[in-house]
Amino acid sequence: MATSKPTAILLVSCPDRRGIVAALSAFILENNGNIIALDQYVDTEDGVFFARMEWELAGFAFPLDQFAARFGAVAEPFRIEWSLHRSDQPLRMAVMVSRQAHCLYDILARHESGEWPAEIALILSNHDDHRGLVERHGIPFHHIPVSAANKAEAESRQIALLQKANVDFVVLARYMQILGPAFVEAFPMRILNIHHSFLPAFAGANPYRAAHDRGVKIIGATAHYVTEKLDEGPIIEQDVIRVSHRQGVDDLVRLGRDLEKIVLSRAIYGHLHHRLLVYKNRTVVFS
Amino acid sequence: MATSKPTAILLVSCPDRRGIVAALSAFILENNGNIIALDQYVDTEDGVFFARMEWELAGFAFPLDQFAARFGAVAEPFRIEWSLHRSDQPLRMAVMVSRQAHCLYDILARHESGEWPAEIALILSNHDDHRGLVERHGIPFHHIPVSAANKAEAESRQIALLQKANVDFVVLARYMQILGPAFVEAFPMRILNIHHSFLPAFAGANPYRAAHDRGVKIIGATAHYVTEKLDEGPIIEQDVIRVSHRQGVDDLVRLGRDLEKIVLSRAIYGHLHHRLLVYKNRTVVFS
Amino acid sequence: MATSKPTAILLVSCPDRRGIVAALSAFILENNGNIIALDQYVDTEDGVFFARMEWELAGFAFPLDQFAARFGAVAEPFRIEWSLHRSDQPLRMAVMVSRQAHCLYDILARHESGEWPAEIALILSNHDDHRGLVERHGIPFHHIPVSAANKAEAESRQIALLQKANVDFVVLARYMQILGPAFVEAFPMRILNIHHSFLPAFAGANPYRAAHDRGVKIIGATAHYVTEKLDEGPIIEQDVIRVSHRQGVDDLVRLGRDLEKIVLSRAIYGHLHHRLLVYKNRTVVFS
Amino acid sequence: MATSKPTAILLVSCPDRRGIVAALSAFILENNGNIIALDQYVDTEDGVFFARMEWELAGFAFPLDQFAARFGAVAEPFRIEWSLHRSDQPLRMAVMVSRQAHCLYDILARHESGEWPAEIALILSNHDDHRGLVERHGIPFHHIPVSAANKAEAESRQIALLQKANVDFVVLARYMQILGPAFVEAFPMRILNIHHSFLPAFAGANPYRAAHDRGVKIIGATAHYVTEKLDEGPIIEQDVIRVSHRQGVDDLVRLGRDLEKIVLSRAIYGHLHHRLLVYKNRTVVFS
Repeated sequence: MATSKPTAILLVSCPDRRGIVAALSAFILENNGNIIALDQYVDTEDGVFFARMEWELAGFAFPLDQFAARFGAVAEPFRIEWSLHRSDQPLRMAVMVSRQAHCLYDILARHESGEWPAEIALILSNHDDHRGLVERHGIPFHHIPVSAANKAEAESRQIALLQKANVDFVVLARYMQILGPAFVEAFPMRILNIHHSFLPAFAGANPYRAAHDRGVKIIGATAHYVTEKLDEGPIIEQDVIRVSHRQGVDDLVRLGRDLEKIVLSRAIYGHLHHRLLVYKNRTVVFS
Repeated sequence: MATSKPTAILLVSCPDRRGIVAALSAFILENNGNIIALDQYVDTEDGVFFARMEWELAGFAFPLDQFAARFGAVAEPFRIEWSLHRSDQPLRMAVMVSRQAHCLYDILARHESGEWPAEIALILSNHDDHRGLVERHGIPFHHIPVSAANKAEAESRQIALLQKANVDFVVLARYMQILGPAFVEAFPMRILNIHHSFLPAFAGANPYRAAHDRGVKIIGATAHYVTEKLDEGPIIEQDVIRVSHRQGVDDLVRLGRDLEKIVLSRAIYGHLHHRLLVYKNRTVVFS
Repeated sequence: MATSKPTAILLVSCPDRRGIVAALSAFILENNGNIIALDQYVDTEDGVFFARMEWELAGFAFPLDQFAARFGAVAEPFRIEWSLHRSDQPLRMAVMVSRQAHCLYDILARHESGEWPAEIALILSNHDDHRGLVERHGIPFHHIPVSAANKAEAESRQIALLQKANVDFVVLARYMQILGPAFVEAFPMRILNIHHSFLPAFAGANPYRAAHDRGVKIIGATAHYVTEKLDEGPIIEQDVIRVSHRQGVDDLVRLGRDLEKIVLSRAIYGHLHHRLLVYKNRTVVFS
Repeated sequence: MATSKPTAILLVSCPDRRGIVAALSAFILENNGNIIALDQYVDTEDGVFFARMEWELAGFAFPLDQFAARFGAVAEPFRIEWSLHRSDQPLRMAVMVSRQAHCLYDILARHESGEWPAEIALILSNHDDHRGLVERHGIPFHHIPVSAANKAEAESRQIALLQKANVDFVVLARYMQILGPAFVEAFPMRILNIHHSFLPAFAGANPYRAAHDRGVKIIGATAHYVTEKLDEGPIIEQDVIRVSHRQGVDDLVRLGRDLEKIVLSRAIYGHLHHRLLVYKNRTVVFS
């Protein structure tokens, strides 16, 4: 992984029109870019074009800080909205966690193994339980208790810490507090949450209890971007496991933990590699 | 299949107490029954015992019409609720269908192949489209149009036909009408429905459209017993398939058809083999 | 489905080089083609580029019988290998079947429902069992018994019938005879088979027995193109189902039937829509 | 978990005969045992009966060290083979690992979280890479290099360490050395391995490369007991994930890591809770 060549990644969306792919690919070609991945998709129902292009930085005709100026001639006539990313600039991520640590353990293990192009800037928790675990990884840990009384103030402290640490995105790794609007607005489409059900089934609290009582034969977990509506943000990834009447709520909790950590990690992977694009509260997941 | 030996199947439930399994198995043993399957389960949360016992009729000490009288001495002290079935008495099933025929085709193919110990007594539809298909299988077909104006009368005719045909249970094979309370009460826990979503997500109409608009990454189908509350009856079986942003509503419909027919067929299989027991709006599915 | 607009579908592969996508998309654009689907993939290990482009025939600058002549200027410098297809020309398919009919039933139901852009030209069997089933669908049925003694002659008759019926491809729907080299060569990458295991596990005869005896916890089915090596052709699609020690061989056979018919139908769907491209005994499956 | 009541767990197998369940359940009842779980299964092909019974120790009529003497009167006439376990005696496990640490991380996290009724007695590795990771968990770590030249001697040291540490079973958490017969014989059906393929497909080295080259559409992982034949021991658990032509070998390795750790952890769970019984190189997995 460490030796892979630095690349630029361009995410685009625009009204679907003839000639977009030709224009995009011609632009990269003319500027001597070697495209190593191109995935495009047209939402025919709404007439919207989406694409992700990745090309090697080596040999590209101009430095990326000139991209906006140069790409304008292509983007404007097609009304392209775009964002540009670099594979050699690891994102800075924050993790927020409460008492349950299985997702946190999994994230720390992947980080320590070098599986992800990411730095963990800090970890916030409304409990102090996991300070030791986090600090032995050399990562700053902040304990910010949250109650009904101090919620607004606690969020202000959280936002301030995250902004000061210059984080690119926030992962809620079974953080059991609902974020207020100010927090969500501070990190639009940059907060990933794992919900322990197959959304939209069993939104809200105690989904395993609810799943058990409804008698479902399959349970799931859902990673999504956080929006102002609880558990209603764009879904990034889901997975499921079969259960039976034999599994009590405790069994669902146990089986669900593995689902949660895997599903969350896949969502983080997609976010880190700039494979996710949100449209109409849904995600396009580029391959 | 045809040559398997006739068996008796006993389904029981009762408050959990020490000695139930010992009492049940002693009863069968003393009456010279050869148990070929025994599956039991205790809901520890509610303290309820469930079991399914199957033994060969050959050599059993008494004819089954004496079962109630003889089993009473075991059942009463444990307050056992039970039902008794015979594998050599195929159930009589009715199928109700609307315009979409994929589940109907699948049911007819399984029936014609001899896969199921069942007779299809008749098929009802609110459209006449599939008369030819059904009648070439030699099965009676009744076209009963249903509208807001005639709904009560149409249901009366349906119930009368089903009762006259002496059906044991009814399969709604993508029957797109909501059954009224009188119909549901006439066949308690004997109406199987296939819903084209992963319940409780996307109950009601147009679940594939709703799934698409919510942007889920997995779609499902759910077979359940019909109760008076729409799409809220005990779930018998569910299955899912992974989808992506690339699948439009038409694709979900196409992929879902295969889920629906397979999930429905598994539920019918369970019902036919007396493997299903309903408790607190959930199913125990015996193996 | 019937009202969708006619399209052209181009499958291409060539050594990976800068500028291919730009050249392909410019060619279609210059000839006034409205691209409705484009999926491309680069095998970076081998440096090979693959793509599927689909555009509307309406408004395209020239009739498709001139395509080879006009596309040559693009294809030659890039050494592109290509094939061109039309969505308004349904493929003609043949089905070969032995005694087990579940895949045949499923194919006939899909065909009768109009699910596939295909004509079933004829059905061949080494047994006469399913003549009635086939003929009531108005499809020609040919019973050609096959034994060790007459195998070569039987295959000659089969090939002659298939060629006379002008079939585009052949589906082995649980046809339990091994095809000889002459047959395979007559329909290169145009024979689809369903094997009742998760290949490469349990190739050859009796895979369910072998799976049971090995004690696997998951069984599968595999659709693949037939090559001269038994069960070693390019895999098109696979799916699996979880099993346990409780399932005997008969149960595996029963559960496997549903896998087989669904997996085979997905492979047929891919072939019919020109989404499959074979490279190094593997398939690229375009979305 | 910590507060659950201590139980006895009895695993039995014997030739199938009438009256076994009655005899077993009567024995526990007469000795005042409160059965909280009973799962039984008959292999009808071979005529063998299997069961797992779990009852509360509190109130049981005699201490378990008298079990053999007392249970003999039941076991002998039925020729029952049995083993008895206690839930309040956590097993001692050893982990063997090479360079890849994802399974090790997962095991350490579960252990630290108290998810398992187990003590990790020691960790052995043929590399020194993970000493720091292990020792910061307070678990003894032994680095025993293995080469063709020293293999026999290295195994002797390993066996000696394991026996001295009084381990109940050994987990190969991606330990990339083949164990010799002496090692396997020292821990019969007490060595769990995770193989990174869907066995029996792709046994041996480099299964992800082999899976990629064969072009499978689904990859898997398999946990099994180690026997003298490489990758041929009784399968405990398997799981799979869908892949496509887009995934290169590196992607399969990445996706497979999550499969491996989850599948291995489920196998460990089953072993720890005495839910596994081996028969004819297959496992019965009790629920």
